[in-house]
Amino acid sequence: MPTVTHASGSYAIHTEALATAPRRLRDAGLEPGLALVVTDETVGGLYLDVLADALRADGWQPHPVVVPPGEGSKSIATFAGVCDACLAAGPSRQTPLLALGGGVVGDLGGFAAATLLRGLPLAQLPTTVLAQVDSSIGGKTGINTRRGKNLVGAFHAPLFVLADPAVLATLPEREVRSGLAEAVKHALLAGGDLFETMVAAPRWEERLAEIVPMAAAVKAAVVSGDEREAGERAFLNLGHTFGHALEAAAGYGTLTHGEAVAVGMRAALHLSASLAAGRAVEPLPEPWAAMDALVRRLDPPAVPHALTDDALVAAMTSDKKRDASGLRFVVLDGVGVPRLAQGVPEARVRAAWAFARRV
Amino acid sequence: MPTVTHASGSYAIHTEALATAPRRLRDAGLEPGLALVVTDETVGGLYLDVLADALRADGWQPHPVVVPPGEGSKSIATFAGVCDACLAAGPSRQTPLLALGGGVVGDLGGFAAATLLRGLPLAQLPTTVLAQVDSSIGGKTGINTRRGKNLVGAFHAPLFVLADPAVLATLPEREVRSGLAEAVKHALLAGGDLFETMVAAPRWEERLAEIVPMAAAVKAAVVSGDEREAGERAFLNLGHTFGHALEAAAGYGTLTHGEAVAVGMRAALHLSASLAAGRAVEPLPEPWAAMDALVRRLDPPAVPHALTDDALVAAMTSDKKRDASGLRFVVLDGVGVPRLAQGVPEARVRAAWAFARRV
Repeated sequence: MPTVTHASGSYAIHTEALATAPRRLRDAGLEPGLALVVTDETVGGLYLDVLADALRADGWQPHPVVVPPGEGSKSIATFAGVCDACLAAGPSRQTPLLALGGGVVGDLGGFAAATLLRGLPLAQLPTTVLAQVDSSIGGKTGINTRRGKNLVGAFHAPLFVLADPAVLATLPEREVRSGLAEAVKHALLAGGDLFETMVAAPRWEERLAEIVPMAAAVKAAVVSGDEREAGERAFLNLGHTFGHALEAAAGYGTLTHGEAVAVGMRAALHLSASLAAGRAVEPLPEPWAAMDALVRRLDPPAVPHALTDDALVAAMTSDKKRDASGLRFVVLDGVGVPRLAQGVPEARVRAAWAFARRV
Repeated sequence: MPTVTHASGSYAIHTEALATAPRRLRDAGLEPGLALVVTDETVGGLYLDVLADALRADGWQPHPVVVPPGEGSKSIATFAGVCDACLAAGPSRQTPLLALGGGVVGDLGGFAAATLLRGLPLAQLPTTVLAQVDSSIGGKTGINTRRGKNLVGAFHAPLFVLADPAVLATLPEREVRSGLAEAVKHALLAGGDLFETMVAAPRWEERLAEIVPMAAAVKAAVVSGDEREAGERAFLNLGHTFGHALEAAAGYGTLTHGEAVAVGMRAALHLSASLAAGRAVEPLPEPWAAMDALVRRLDPPAVPHALTDDALVAAMTSDKKRDASGLRFVVLDGVGVPRLAQGVPEARVRAAWAFARRV
């Protein structure tokens, strides 16, 4: 069972049925009582009854707080509404908040848990591939502002992550593929069994029960001991400096996060190869070609012609991870061998975009 | 120099001129650059220029964010506005946020610092007696909701607290007295030099430069090692279970926080004496009489007749510090000898209110 270890404590990632959540709360030392459940209309419609019934059967009083689905709910207005709805139930500092849903619910519900009464115990119950392999793990929570994504938030480690493989069956195909982009990212970063399994598996969608826990374990290992992104955790931004810029330039909601990250990983692989060779190289040599082949199985979308290289480069410099010495990129010297590159010439970045924008 | 020590680090409370803030930022390891300054119109009108000039002289670019004065600014709407205004300046995770003002600015600006980019370095520059002896110390930040005060917030330790004694000279008398209520509270909790000094000083307003740092040191000692209110820190609620209820029942803004706490401390002293004696005792015996004499020098206001004992008792049970076993009170077995009392009979609580509501 993968475990995330931070200076402030540790938590496990359980791969098991949603209905075990109440027992896990008690195992964490909480007494049955009020339990806040933050979810969205889509996930709530499918799984809220199962979870609420299990909570009630174990002596808890579930109090559902249901938000509209989609990134729009990561707003300060929805955050305020969630806080009000939670406070209406009269929580104490021992009241758990269960975030049942995908990345939006995990980030929003997690931020509410981080700040209500200055911190409630949190259980992450991720219901998408993206959330199960990535966003529910590591303690990052937050909301968006008009200036960008996740610009207001907190680090708030959950009591546990409970990822039920069964709930993935109801996901739309595009949503599954978006999440698999992060699994591919973890395969490139860690190599080993996850990389081999993904290379060998003909249809990832049929092997989620195997791939998802392995990919989650990579995330758990990376964030352990690096809660606040001082070192190794920055590697998880592989493809994201490019991908975030593409998401922002295309307009949020045009591409899924995973689609943007897939394009971004191709750009990062091109950059990796050209930094290694000292010049832009196409076609990509090994080992980057094999990694790019894995990324292309995600079927990354074409970048719209209207998005010029200038627009994409401009969008990169508004990402919050920039620092004074310029943009910072995660590159790969090999499968499972990431490093940070700073002071990259803009020409290399443009060449990487030119490569990645071609399907 | 008093220092607050938490598991996650420690910070000092400096009693010195505002203009030294830039040097303290550099001492904390920050490089001159953008510096966010959150303040309110009143304090900003008096001291923003001094601080901004000092920052510029040291190579910083101050970016002021000015909110209306008063508790109304501890709203989610003002919080959102402060976040937007800070983000407009393009901060990085190394950009400090300086909270220049009283308790409202410290709580609001501190919460913005806790959550912007998931945490910016914070400097607390308290400008009221209340903020200098109490609210700027200990890392609590937060805002109010329609359901109550400080119900959404975070623990976010500052880099340092810089309390300039000179700024207290421009405070209105009622504001000074409200802050002195917390100084009296610290004198009752700690006894020793602070208690003796306050007993001996004929006019506290003329001895602020002596009393305020001593009272701040008591707060620093209590919160050190108890950041999240697991133990000793709860003693700081002396008078507050009563006082918060009075503030809420009277309507926020009717009484100052210090006035409500002064009435609340009288109730707590009555409760302390009656729990020690096993019955309600009036007049108060020693040592509670001497402590009550100190509290009465704050000139606590009369409780309006319209606020019945029933209304006050009802207001107490909506305080967030209640737990399943009932209300929890801080009582004093002697000067400097606090303890927690739980399971207190309601009759004792009513008798305490009856005592404290009489001027």
